[in-house]
Amino acid sequence: MISAVDAMRTLGLTGEGAMVELRGILAAAPHRLSGSAGAAAAVDYVHKRMAELGFSNVRLEPTMVPSWSRGKPETLTVTAGEAGQVMAHDGFRLAAIGGSVATGDGGLRAEVVLVGSLDEIAERSAEVKGRVVFLDPPVPLGLLESFGVYSALAKARVHGASEAARHGAVGLLTRSITTRRDDNPHTGMLAYKADVPKIPAAALGYQSADRLRKLLASGSRVQAHMQLHCSQGPDVESFNVTGEITGWEKPNEVIVIGAHLDSWDLGPGAHDDAAGCAQSIEALKLIAASGVKPRRTIRAVLYMNEEFGGTGGIDYARSAARMSERHLLAVESDRGGFTPRGFSMNAPPEVVEQWNRYVPILKGAGIDWFVKGGSGVDVRHLEEIGALCMGFVPDSQRYMDLHHSANDVVEEVHPRELELGAVAMAGLALIASELEFNAVESK
Amino acid sequence: MISAVDAMRTLGLTGEGAMVELRGILAAAPHRLSGSAGAAAAVDYVHKRMAELGFSNVRLEPTMVPSWSRGKPETLTVTAGEAGQVMAHDGFRLAAIGGSVATGDGGLRAEVVLVGSLDEIAERSAEVKGRVVFLDPPVPLGLLESFGVYSALAKARVHGASEAARHGAVGLLTRSITTRRDDNPHTGMLAYKADVPKIPAAALGYQSADRLRKLLASGSRVQAHMQLHCSQGPDVESFNVTGEITGWEKPNEVIVIGAHLDSWDLGPGAHDDAAGCAQSIEALKLIAASGVKPRRTIRAVLYMNEEFGGTGGIDYARSAARMSERHLLAVESDRGGFTPRGFSMNAPPEVVEQWNRYVPILKGAGIDWFVKGGSGVDVRHLEEIGALCMGFVPDSQRYMDLHHSANDVVEEVHPRELELGAVAMAGLALIASELEFNAVESK
Repeated sequence: MISAVDAMRTLGLTGEGAMVELRGILAAAPHRLSGSAGAAAAVDYVHKRMAELGFSNVRLEPTMVPSWSRGKPETLTVTAGEAGQVMAHDGFRLAAIGGSVATGDGGLRAEVVLVGSLDEIAERSAEVKGRVVFLDPPVPLGLLESFGVYSALAKARVHGASEAARHGAVGLLTRSITTRRDDNPHTGMLAYKADVPKIPAAALGYQSADRLRKLLASGSRVQAHMQLHCSQGPDVESFNVTGEITGWEKPNEVIVIGAHLDSWDLGPGAHDDAAGCAQSIEALKLIAASGVKPRRTIRAVLYMNEEFGGTGGIDYARSAARMSERHLLAVESDRGGFTPRGFSMNAPPEVVEQWNRYVPILKGAGIDWFVKGGSGVDVRHLEEIGALCMGFVPDSQRYMDLHHSANDVVEEVHPRELELGAVAMAGLALIASELEFNAVESK
Repeated sequence: MISAVDAMRTLGLTGEGAMVELRGILAAAPHRLSGSAGAAAAVDYVHKRMAELGFSNVRLEPTMVPSWSRGKPETLTVTAGEAGQVMAHDGFRLAAIGGSVATGDGGLRAEVVLVGSLDEIAERSAEVKGRVVFLDPPVPLGLLESFGVYSALAKARVHGASEAARHGAVGLLTRSITTRRDDNPHTGMLAYKADVPKIPAAALGYQSADRLRKLLASGSRVQAHMQLHCSQGPDVESFNVTGEITGWEKPNEVIVIGAHLDSWDLGPGAHDDAAGCAQSIEALKLIAASGVKPRRTIRAVLYMNEEFGGTGGIDYARSAARMSERHLLAVESDRGGFTPRGFSMNAPPEVVEQWNRYVPILKGAGIDWFVKGGSGVDVRHLEEIGALCMGFVPDSQRYMDLHHSANDVVEEVHPRELELGAVAMAGLALIASELEFNAVESK
């Protein structure tokens, strides 16, 4: 098994086939927002591509997705100062948070109040009423993993609008979740609560957020004029795309290697998650080239709509097509196409420990450990049907620089790093398909 | 100790002080070739900088270094084809290998012969005579670590010229050692043997090497006209620069954290090795800020002339100033400012195993392991005076893209990755300075 991993790595790093897949996806569908024509083009492209590569059972499986669109670029102008000395400030960079309502034609005008946490919104209820809340919690840049920054701040982005609306706010601004102190805004999804009004919500670029803080710190009244042009259409049908190498001995026992095909609209989503899709396809190519005929089925699943509700992952796990199958292990690559470090898994410590015994097999792909942790937004639903679910964990330092922003471009992807992730996933899938190990059996 | 590492990381990643040091070095001395005015400017800058930062015993220690210079850009034109159909080809990109002699005013004209290994030069002695040898061994891109590519090819660059000259060749061309298939040439040092003529030697860009191979593969005679304008002056005096936090309890027991201040001349050497110098300085800053007063002395040593003979490392270890000191541990950062993975050390397995017990302390800086392996060109000489020597091992995937070429610029350095390396070195130094561990005592 070590030799299979080494052979796949040698082939992979020499040919850089994951980069070929990545460029193919980005050329066919540079924008892949759920429900968009671009996402449909991506489905079409990878469906044809997997067939062309000779994968078996290449299929589309339907899932309903929202169709939100950003519309014209957002604008924010701000006036600040005392009476007689009011100055206008523009050039702020911002992006509507995914799912936000528009501001209406004339835009939204209200005074801005700075709030440091979701809890503080309730505590300062009186000040929030009628205002635009600028929700700007501290950015914990000192954490080792850049995901820590995301974990700490995502709640504000997701729930800020409804929490502010509950206390009478008329709009929400947040700081983009990022580790790069540039001014490109980073978007993502919000979730409106049903029992409060939907208010417009946007994320400021890091530097724009700093500017707004500075104006507020000067002590003068800061008045915002914010324009968001987003619109929400009816849900539309889209698809997960699957293709596989069917197991020769146990075709109904399935290993899933997955990623999500949709992306945010501010950039091409090269790392998030065209990289994971490219790796999933490349992993099947590497396995096919390795000469190992898998005993169990190894299936690439390119999920639709991870970013905007995760319906693809839910529908794959619950589809009637799963009834005749037994899913043993599912791994998702959705943390960027960077150098592999390990896999995280939602499993008891003794199972994690068992998997750590396979590290020597995967060392040749750069894998150093298995740890307890999350798997992936899409694959985690497969736990409901008995699968052990894992997330591929690459180096995280650069990911939040790019995540959900215009920074997430192909130039940020390194061919060797991307390829090693494909090798790591292929190696993991081969372990799961070939060996009789307790970790899977014990689920 | 874990809390000290976490505190240093939090401070480090928030402030990105290693990037401040890196930018300072690159601004003061963007070119730092041994023996050059730029290298002298670098010595001057870091000497002042360490004093300004309040380090103790900030010193210059002399070392003699060569003074080779490249001169005007190198050129290669080639003619190929049969009589009556000879075509000229130019636009090749190449760089003299460090230490090469010039070609003389009119340049060197000779037929080119392709050779695949150092051994093949001897085997094809008759064909080599009077020719320019194009020594182009296979590039093992499939290896996990990009250093593997370097290890496989460096011998050809270092010894190719004299081996070819021994069989009568008049010039040497090699393929640049790189994992990036662009056309920027990568230089490095050669070593002439005393008993054969010195012939001019240059490294072609990856794409230029491919072009030349293609011309040779067409079967026609390929005639080179190669011009190198390098020159070698007399050796000059330069300096290692040292600064420290003196141990309060055992000032004469020394931990070295080091890197090299010189670089190749084709680029600013941002990763190789301004990054390591910045990390060594930043590590001392982080230790000072951590509140831990080290029991032993922790010294940053910025070595001169790693690239061109390693005299700085030799002279530091052998200097009279070492007589009164006991060096326990020395670590070098000279593999790029990328995300930390581990440390490699030249020590018996049981000592490596002991050090792996400290991994939990260093996890917060991204360190996953200690392994047996090389330390660093500069610090390894400290083994002669009893130190345990280590090399800091960051992720290697991007390093050979940049190494010794114009690609090695500050834009390729990621502030968080660079900083984590400084934290890892600071953490390692604190372990060595504070704990009574057998690994050091057993040396």
